[in-house]
Amino acid sequence: MPSGQSNSNSNSISATNNRQHNPPAEAVPSFPPPESESDESWVWSQIKAEARRDADSEPALASFLYATVLSHPSLPRSLSFHLANKLCSSTLLSTLLYDLFVASFSEHPTLRSAAVADLLAVMKRDPACVSFSHCLLNYKGFLAIQAHRVSHVLWSQNRKPLALALQSRIADVFAVDIHPAARIGKGILLDHATGVVIGETAVVGNNVSILHHVTLGGTGKDVGDRHPKIADGVLIGAGATILGNIKIGEGAKIGAGSLVLIDVPARTTAVGNPARLIGRNNRGEPVKNEGDVFPGETMDHTSFIQQWCDYII
Amino acid sequence: MPSGQSNSNSNSISATNNRQHNPPAEAVPSFPPPESESDESWVWSQIKAEARRDADSEPALASFLYATVLSHPSLPRSLSFHLANKLCSSTLLSTLLYDLFVASFSEHPTLRSAAVADLLAVMKRDPACVSFSHCLLNYKGFLAIQAHRVSHVLWSQNRKPLALALQSRIADVFAVDIHPAARIGKGILLDHATGVVIGETAVVGNNVSILHHVTLGGTGKDVGDRHPKIADGVLIGAGATILGNIKIGEGAKIGAGSLVLIDVPARTTAVGNPARLIGRNNRGEPVKNEGDVFPGETMDHTSFIQQWCDYII
Amino acid sequence: MPSGQSNSNSNSISATNNRQHNPPAEAVPSFPPPESESDESWVWSQIKAEARRDADSEPALASFLYATVLSHPSLPRSLSFHLANKLCSSTLLSTLLYDLFVASFSEHPTLRSAAVADLLAVMKRDPACVSFSHCLLNYKGFLAIQAHRVSHVLWSQNRKPLALALQSRIADVFAVDIHPAARIGKGILLDHATGVVIGETAVVGNNVSILHHVTLGGTGKDVGDRHPKIADGVLIGAGATILGNIKIGEGAKIGAGSLVLIDVPARTTAVGNPARLIGRNNRGEPVKNEGDVFPGETMDHTSFIQQWCDYII
Amino acid sequence: MPSGQSNSNSNSISATNNRQHNPPAEAVPSFPPPESESDESWVWSQIKAEARRDADSEPALASFLYATVLSHPSLPRSLSFHLANKLCSSTLLSTLLYDLFVASFSEHPTLRSAAVADLLAVMKRDPACVSFSHCLLNYKGFLAIQAHRVSHVLWSQNRKPLALALQSRIADVFAVDIHPAARIGKGILLDHATGVVIGETAVVGNNVSILHHVTLGGTGKDVGDRHPKIADGVLIGAGATILGNIKIGEGAKIGAGSLVLIDVPARTTAVGNPARLIGRNNRGEPVKNEGDVFPGETMDHTSFIQQWCDYII
Amino acid sequence: MPSGQSNSNSNSISATNNRQHNPPAEAVPSFPPPESESDESWVWSQIKAEARRDADSEPALASFLYATVLSHPSLPRSLSFHLANKLCSSTLLSTLLYDLFVASFSEHPTLRSAAVADLLAVMKRDPACVSFSHCLLNYKGFLAIQAHRVSHVLWSQNRKPLALALQSRIADVFAVDIHPAARIGKGILLDHATGVVIGETAVVGNNVSILHHVTLGGTGKDVGDRHPKIADGVLIGAGATILGNIKIGEGAKIGAGSLVLIDVPARTTAVGNPARLIGRNNRGEPVKNEGDVFPGETMDHTSFIQQWCDYII
Amino acid sequence: MPSGQSNSNSNSISATNNRQHNPPAEAVPSFPPPESESDESWVWSQIKAEARRDADSEPALASFLYATVLSHPSLPRSLSFHLANKLCSSTLLSTLLYDLFVASFSEHPTLRSAAVADLLAVMKRDPACVSFSHCLLNYKGFLAIQAHRVSHVLWSQNRKPLALALQSRIADVFAVDIHPAARIGKGILLDHATGVVIGETAVVGNNVSILHHVTLGGTGKDVGDRHPKIADGVLIGAGATILGNIKIGEGAKIGAGSLVLIDVPARTTAVGNPARLIGRNNRGEPVKNEGDVFPGETMDHTSFIQQWCDYII
Repeated sequence: MPSGQSNSNSNSISATNNRQHNPPAEAVPSFPPPESESDESWVWSQIKAEARRDADSEPALASFLYATVLSHPSLPRSLSFHLANKLCSSTLLSTLLYDLFVASFSEHPTLRSAAVADLLAVMKRDPACVSFSHCLLNYKGFLAIQAHRVSHVLWSQNRKPLALALQSRIADVFAVDIHPAARIGKGILLDHATGVVIGETAVVGNNVSILHHVTLGGTGKDVGDRHPKIADGVLIGAGATILGNIKIGEGAKIGAGSLVLIDVPARTTAVGNPARLIGRNNRGEPVKNEGDVFPGETMDHTSFIQQWCDYII
Repeated sequence: MPSGQSNSNSNSISATNNRQHNPPAEAVPSFPPPESESDESWVWSQIKAEARRDADSEPALASFLYATVLSHPSLPRSLSFHLANKLCSSTLLSTLLYDLFVASFSEHPTLRSAAVADLLAVMKRDPACVSFSHCLLNYKGFLAIQAHRVSHVLWSQNRKPLALALQSRIADVFAVDIHPAARIGKGILLDHATGVVIGETAVVGNNVSILHHVTLGGTGKDVGDRHPKIADGVLIGAGATILGNIKIGEGAKIGAGSLVLIDVPARTTAVGNPARLIGRNNRGEPVKNEGDVFPGETMDHTSFIQQWCDYII
Repeated sequence: MPSGQSNSNSNSISATNNRQHNPPAEAVPSFPPPESESDESWVWSQIKAEARRDADSEPALASFLYATVLSHPSLPRSLSFHLANKLCSSTLLSTLLYDLFVASFSEHPTLRSAAVADLLAVMKRDPACVSFSHCLLNYKGFLAIQAHRVSHVLWSQNRKPLALALQSRIADVFAVDIHPAARIGKGILLDHATGVVIGETAVVGNNVSILHHVTLGGTGKDVGDRHPKIADGVLIGAGATILGNIKIGEGAKIGAGSLVLIDVPARTTAVGNPARLIGRNNRGEPVKNEGDVFPGETMDHTSFIQQWCDYII
Repeated sequence: MPSGQSNSNSNSISATNNRQHNPPAEAVPSFPPPESESDESWVWSQIKAEARRDADSEPALASFLYATVLSHPSLPRSLSFHLANKLCSSTLLSTLLYDLFVASFSEHPTLRSAAVADLLAVMKRDPACVSFSHCLLNYKGFLAIQAHRVSHVLWSQNRKPLALALQSRIADVFAVDIHPAARIGKGILLDHATGVVIGETAVVGNNVSILHHVTLGGTGKDVGDRHPKIADGVLIGAGATILGNIKIGEGAKIGAGSLVLIDVPARTTAVGNPARLIGRNNRGEPVKNEGDVFPGETMDHTSFIQQWCDYII
Repeated sequence: MPSGQSNSNSNSISATNNRQHNPPAEAVPSFPPPESESDESWVWSQIKAEARRDADSEPALASFLYATVLSHPSLPRSLSFHLANKLCSSTLLSTLLYDLFVASFSEHPTLRSAAVADLLAVMKRDPACVSFSHCLLNYKGFLAIQAHRVSHVLWSQNRKPLALALQSRIADVFAVDIHPAARIGKGILLDHATGVVIGETAVVGNNVSILHHVTLGGTGKDVGDRHPKIADGVLIGAGATILGNIKIGEGAKIGAGSLVLIDVPARTTAVGNPARLIGRNNRGEPVKNEGDVFPGETMDHTSFIQQWCDYII
Repeated sequence: MPSGQSNSNSNSISATNNRQHNPPAEAVPSFPPPESESDESWVWSQIKAEARRDADSEPALASFLYATVLSHPSLPRSLSFHLANKLCSSTLLSTLLYDLFVASFSEHPTLRSAAVADLLAVMKRDPACVSFSHCLLNYKGFLAIQAHRVSHVLWSQNRKPLALALQSRIADVFAVDIHPAARIGKGILLDHATGVVIGETAVVGNNVSILHHVTLGGTGKDVGDRHPKIADGVLIGAGATILGNIKIGEGAKIGAGSLVLIDVPARTTAVGNPARLIGRNNRGEPVKNEGDVFPGETMDHTSFIQQWCDYII
């Protein structure tokens, strides 16, 4: 994505522009409106076709597929049903959650377009994802993000206790802990997802890929804006810990297991504990990724190994 | 906390005094008795007032708040109900667990004072915690600790199979795995909590703050005392791994993502993989934190960055 | 285990022999057949004796023990019941899962011998494991592995949607995410287990011990064979991240928190982020472990500390 | 109710007019449209006020009252929630039923006005009914009727399998077995309700009161129209059995325990096994009830005792 | 029981003495205090011995028996657990009901002695009852009565909404509908129980046996005292309907399927629809039962057949 | 059925032959073995075809139909699943019951042939039954009978506590209370079923039809053989009460609401309270039904009305 475009996405973060840090005036995330209704329709048609095929070939799964997908008239209904049955507990009944999700998806079309963008992103980036329905039904990261977006809407509407209760259920069920106030873009892949923690004032741009055990944490000493801002197209490897109100620039790559405490420029790679930048030329300037390839979209985790000079076993 | 006080807390660990390592003679953790009954009463009043306010403003949550808080006569009852409904399964019924928790809180007042101390600690240290009821209802770390303390009582009473079954439920539901034999002080903040693992012979002092993905693990080669001893006021950052029967001294700070295999003196900071001490003067002596400020209480995660000489991206 | 034996285990990986990377022709993992029926019988007798003893001493747990162990005629039935009740949801009923597990254990005896081997391995290696029934009932790692093996059978039979649905339930309930296509040997200890991620083309040999938060991940850029191959007897410490189609040789040891991106030779130790080999002689050759002691079996996590030259706090 | 009015209610049955026996052309019961929206609003306001009062005075019930009444924006939503949670099973999930009920009440306003009329009828006729919320929450007869009306709509829309599944759940949960094809008027009191059986071609008019164990059964030998037609304002005592395609005229009264196999004229009383008419003058003509008082509305069960000449103990 | 004794039991009804109709001043049923604590202890010992024997011989039932009986320290705890798990619903949680039952049995010892008296009565009178635990676990009539007594206590304490909610659950689960205000003695056998309806102002004395489908109903026209008063030792056959504020005298017998609308004298038998007295001598005086044998205790249903003059097939 | 045939059915009762009253030597009901396997296959094919058609036309029901019917390989599996999910409770888990039912149907083929015979009987006799799957899924009488037969097998195997626990669940869930010792033939229609009570020593022949609220009760005074014996082809109307060790002869008809205390000869009709025989010629001899038409099969409830001389309203 050209950086010129990112300015039009108020949820994305460029390293030189932090207007997005101001809380949005409106109650809902400022995703661009769905490019066209046809995207959702097309994805939903795919999902139903896949579910029908799988129900035919696997009777043991047919009941699940009919209950969760094939009996529903639309993607938001199916998603609401699935989330409600995943997140319900003996004291937060599925019907209550179902109502909440159906109403949220109905009132906030951006929640729907973001879900569609995430489905497309997962299919495009994760070679282990065999179908849209696989993602919808089985990806805890996908489901956690969709539920988070609803909790974010609630938070923005000042329905904080309900937003926090929803966060708690997501954390219990999916082991993904995203503060309702955190702003998450669209086209997100949260791969494997277990252990992801994203703090209150964190912002995640569009087309970002985040592996499991990633922390976007606070520094602990501040009360205000204290969490990372992740720009568009960033890839964050498994177990990376990014702490403080720092900026990870567009298209940057954070190596698995890295600890990042200082800004990372756009299109550069940071690795290690503490993280160092690699891929600089001999003037100390970062060697930018070629073209507009964003690692958050290509999922290139390890091409930097040769450049990591001291990495020799 | 002055070190003179820590001696009176048999569960706290000072780096120079390991009397606390001996298993206590009595069956239950030797927390000091609650300073005054009024602490619990005051916190409970706060929680009920908060829950009433939230129930009024959010009808969708009122049922949950009444079931979990407002219908109960006391904090231990509310906590027992909440834990029982969280931890129950189809083969460990909620009524059985409820009975167990109610009886434990009734017979062991230290469990109650420790819960109150934890509530106060979370509110004081975590800027994301908006109310006592938020912590009571939604913090999986808080709930895991309370349930652990009950499993510890059971273990101390030689009811090991039940203690281990409870540990297993806590590990499944909260993704927090604390061996029932581990001794945990009071005033604990287990922030985010997912992935915390604390081994059998570990000891954690008072006023300790532990982030998610932290391991207090064994070395694997020993059968006996093989896990870390964490003194009062320690702060352990996200993803830190501390292995072996080593001591982390009072007020020490362990950086996020660190791997610690050797003792850390009091009031010093260890960071990196493997961890190194930072903040030493030019005689190699550690520069102690000023005054009696304990990082476990101030949650100052990152003030050491400038001192971490080689941390330059 | 002498290396001569490992060749007869098609699921084990030696660093110089990657024939095992080819997908097996038959539908089920090619574990050797159970050495004798008596192993399963003996373990099952132990488990029942333990459960009876615990039921007698702890009435509060007796119902659980009878439901899960003592009412069943065999280990596979008990395990099927326990897994079905753990993994069921409102849309995947326990009876359906029970049927699936009972049928799988009945049709594939290797699933049973592998479960027995795992039970024996956990008891032998984990000092915190007090009994076979403790492992069967409470070890989420043990349970996740057994359920994974069933999902692997389903995958091998081309029942992929059901295999993926099962993976999803395992990931939700145990926070262990193993792709159904991954091939896992027997005699596995998955200790604590929370956060373990094992990718699609990963292979894990026999007698391997893996701690929590371990990732056997892909590099993201490839679609095909892109995950690590772990040979027999390897020990992988907590939080280690191993990425790419690399080989970890027989009896190697990966330190906690390490990031491994390149092959590790047999019987050597890799530590750090990025990982370095330690324990080499002054010709740069690795100092092999003495005798045939495999760290995956001895669980020796930290004996390398003295050799890790720069590890001084 | 003057008989002139009854003609305008196609669901009511007058003894001399059987046009109502023809199946209605339209899909839904031909109740008159709600006289005014204000009835539903008024009743709903009452219910909320009662529930709020009860929640205040009885914390143990507050969670139930909030979940079932106070968190809902309207009577149909509250009723849909309550029915869904009562009638759901492990294979018919509450969210599915909730969806079905919400959609039905939304598409068929007569279902709502009939529910309101029933609430008013129960409050007016049953001295044991202390409040509208008491009826809404606790009267299995009221709930069974409301669920039946939805199954009747489904039947009329030719969604017979779903209608029959719903009938089955009503029969299991409330022990009330009403065939989906049966047409039931409004203003119905089904008191106690256990054991009521109403067959496929039965028709029940408006303002009818039916006690428990009442059967409106077929004769068994016919396939077609074979069940009783109950006109407006009839009172049927506990345990009465009415068999065959016979007519019970307006304002008739059927004594408890009676067996009725032949038409009963309007405003007369039938008692006994087999039932005889009582309350005739000496010309054998029935002594009609005075005025327009209908026993189905006055619930006068036993005023006929003196007239039952041979009833002397 | 000599009639002189019945006066001291305010809950029993003699035909000539209606002082008992006045509501009792105190909140709880005025059963005589338990004759001795030893009765409850003895019965509880029996129940545990039976359950232990059955658990040994039937592993498939052992889990149920341990959960419901053998894990509990006392009969009231076991009964509270069993009732809570039977009567709970998705909106009335088992822990809430368990709390309620435990508290009620603790505060009102007469509830315990009445339960013991019922257990003894069932064992004595019902030849199909093979053990005390059979009654405790499986007799829906026994369980319905115990739960009713708790709802009666709540009603007497003016906690009417909770009492009515409990009545509703009993009616749903056991198909037994007893108004919370109804006063029921002790030593009651409610055999089979399905369909029993007992109205608001009904009173049932001690040692009464009531078969299924029995109605103690109102006449519908009155608001006040309008339901039957059943004296001590009465036997009411299956399907009998007794309506209105009438008296059924001590030791009377009501034949199956009878409809009773007028007082029945002590020690007489009423049969038929409408019911007639049988067993009178030729002066029209009833032939009393010999000695003090009460049919409610002997369960002699049919000895009157020969006396029922017109009963000839 | 000619009476000559009935002798070969030890479960059928002819009025002049009470050899069947002796308990059978073998553990299971002596139904004739299934005439041919093809009956079960044919019915199962029908059920699957119906379920597939309904799943296609009604997506909201498809999940239920797949879970309950279409995912199963055979009728006994489907029935076991359905019964287990209907009858399970929080203390009797569905997996345990499923195991029990699967094993019972497998070991006792007569249970399967009897279920098939019942399905055929319901379809043939009940005009409201629209399909085999309708009966299998929705008829509580059908389901209660199948579960009873399993409890009868358990009773015969002296597994009495489990048999009684199952009886209790059937009574709770279906409001049908059949003692496990009662012997029930095949080809049974239990229409509507609510409130049916069948006592310990009752015997019901083949091809019997029993409406709801029917009691086959004891006289209460005896401990031994004390319940009715119902011969083949009998029809018992709604609410009929038959008490004592009496015989209802082949092809007899018992009118709705009747109270029967004395033997009823074959092919005669008994009605009233107390019941009288009708349809006798002027020599007092019963006018037998023409041919071999059995009312239990034709369901002719009311053809006797004209003969019931005093039935005139």
